[in-house]
Amino acid sequence: MDTVNLKKLAKELGLAVSTVSRALRDSHEISKETKDRVKALATAWGFQPNAHASGLRQNKSKTIGVIIPEIENNFFSQIINGIELIAQDKGFHVLVYLTHEDTEKERSILQLLRNGRVDGLMISLSNTTTSFEHLEAWRNANIPIVLFDRICEELDVPVVTINDMDVSFKATEHLIENGCKKIAFLSLADQLSISARRKAGYLKALQKYNMEPQQLLVECGPDNKTNDEIIHRLLREEKPDGVFTAIERLAINMYEVCNEMKIKIPEELKLVSFSNSPSAPLFCPPLSAIVQPAYDMGREAAATLFRLIEKKTLLSYEKKVMLRAGLCKRNSSAITKSRF
Amino acid sequence: MDTVNLKKLAKELGLAVSTVSRALRDSHEISKETKDRVKALATAWGFQPNAHASGLRQNKSKTIGVIIPEIENNFFSQIINGIELIAQDKGFHVLVYLTHEDTEKERSILQLLRNGRVDGLMISLSNTTTSFEHLEAWRNANIPIVLFDRICEELDVPVVTINDMDVSFKATEHLIENGCKKIAFLSLADQLSISARRKAGYLKALQKYNMEPQQLLVECGPDNKTNDEIIHRLLREEKPDGVFTAIERLAINMYEVCNEMKIKIPEELKLVSFSNSPSAPLFCPPLSAIVQPAYDMGREAAATLFRLIEKKTLLSYEKKVMLRAGLCKRNSSAITKSRF
Repeated sequence: MDTVNLKKLAKELGLAVSTVSRALRDSHEISKETKDRVKALATAWGFQPNAHASGLRQNKSKTIGVIIPEIENNFFSQIINGIELIAQDKGFHVLVYLTHEDTEKERSILQLLRNGRVDGLMISLSNTTTSFEHLEAWRNANIPIVLFDRICEELDVPVVTINDMDVSFKATEHLIENGCKKIAFLSLADQLSISARRKAGYLKALQKYNMEPQQLLVECGPDNKTNDEIIHRLLREEKPDGVFTAIERLAINMYEVCNEMKIKIPEELKLVSFSNSPSAPLFCPPLSAIVQPAYDMGREAAATLFRLIEKKTLLSYEKKVMLRAGLCKRNSSAITKSRF
Repeated sequence: MDTVNLKKLAKELGLAVSTVSRALRDSHEISKETKDRVKALATAWGFQPNAHASGLRQNKSKTIGVIIPEIENNFFSQIINGIELIAQDKGFHVLVYLTHEDTEKERSILQLLRNGRVDGLMISLSNTTTSFEHLEAWRNANIPIVLFDRICEELDVPVVTINDMDVSFKATEHLIENGCKKIAFLSLADQLSISARRKAGYLKALQKYNMEPQQLLVECGPDNKTNDEIIHRLLREEKPDGVFTAIERLAINMYEVCNEMKIKIPEELKLVSFSNSPSAPLFCPPLSAIVQPAYDMGREAAATLFRLIEKKTLLSYEKKVMLRAGLCKRNSSAITKSRF
């Protein structure tokens, strides 16, 4: 079986190609009987009009693009799951691009997609992105765009975020309530607004409880080995009794280093982290985690994008959607009694 | 800034649209000087030829499709990572489709993509797929296709797999060597060849060590709660001292049920599972895992697909690529001394 095209359908039916084409487009010039015959054969043969040809006619690609920093991460893969649900429902295709935290790659992908390949774009910024002309240019070209999670606050485009500051405040407060006196905040060194919001939540909690401000802000990087060394030094020299990590990978580093240094969690050090890992309850001890509604975030971002693609006017609350993350308290931050 | 098109470039340069178009296509009819002027402005303005128009002319979409059962799974997200590396290198776009283990969805995606939207397709089958006409039809249409991981062995198309049978044999042998006398094999109820290969490895090891064959083949399903009940019953009634789970999710069920039933891993029951989770070493106890080279599998599948797209002849060893998974022994299957 070769590719089915209009010519083959026409030959089989004994009709002109133009008749078949018009029948499939439901033209009023063609009788109902002929349309039914044409459509029946087209269905039987699995005929699909050529995507590029019909995309060109309609000036629609029926495709959306998603740009994310990485995919080996439960958070972003849950996002894709949510986006895909909405896209399938709308009959759209989803192109996925990974920047691997490289802002140059992010720029070149946006540039590449300026040619009409997508009807709209969703993006979560790379952590090396510090300027936003590429997003500005995209917005100015009037192609629909939605930012999610790692957004740029200066830009006037719809965004979907979570309550990063509030939930970070809560996580820090939880450590304080469970007895921590010296709490470190570990995050990646970047200029993303999301990192600033998480840090602000931590600082606000320290301030509320009259603890020494900014005492232990620790910046980590892309390299795991270097991060292990940073954490080693932190635990040896500063001896915090609580740690709040802004990303899951750093919590895994914390477990590893505490194991090596024989520091007991939660007896000697309590730990809370952002994490969407379904196996966090199996960790030793189970990880107290801020769980983000990633699937819903994907759905909301896609729903907003389709409102733009369908040229609906966004209401003000639809332009800035904020979802709520939850703090799931487990043993890594539990109160422990002295065992002697 | 609006979309840049040929007309605007032509106006700015004081040239005819056809001249600009030919200059960009490097036509010999246009002088080098004019070409340089045209290309310089096109670059400065970020002009990209319309994807659909040029795709139509070249009969190339510069796009590949990837169909996977799910994405919230370290294995498949690592696969995507590997595929994306090769695709970016080739300047291709990657469409991602999820079947959510629904064979009807799998069929309709293949049908939808028959219209030239992709230059080639990679697919890992849904676990509800039991017949293969949709793949047969695709292959017969002579559009490049590669199957990976969950493949169909009857079909004459290139495949990329891992050594499922050998590594399953090794995992079972490891449990036997560490003292297990009654080993259960937990898998999903499906007719995939990959599941059959894993089961065959388990049975082969039992046979080699003269253990009762097929004693504890346990089939689980899509629902976690039902699986927990199945595992509860298994542990209560059959009391295995070793369990080998064919997928990571079932290992998580095992930990949960053992916790509830206060069955100690590895003292009372030893566990090995397929798992690509980076946090398996943090589990309580750390999980002995068969780790699959998922990233490499994505790269190999994509590399094979591009050989087909570029109309290269595949050598016989390129048609059936088998990668090797490793068994990473940790505490969940360790030998323990009686503590009294």
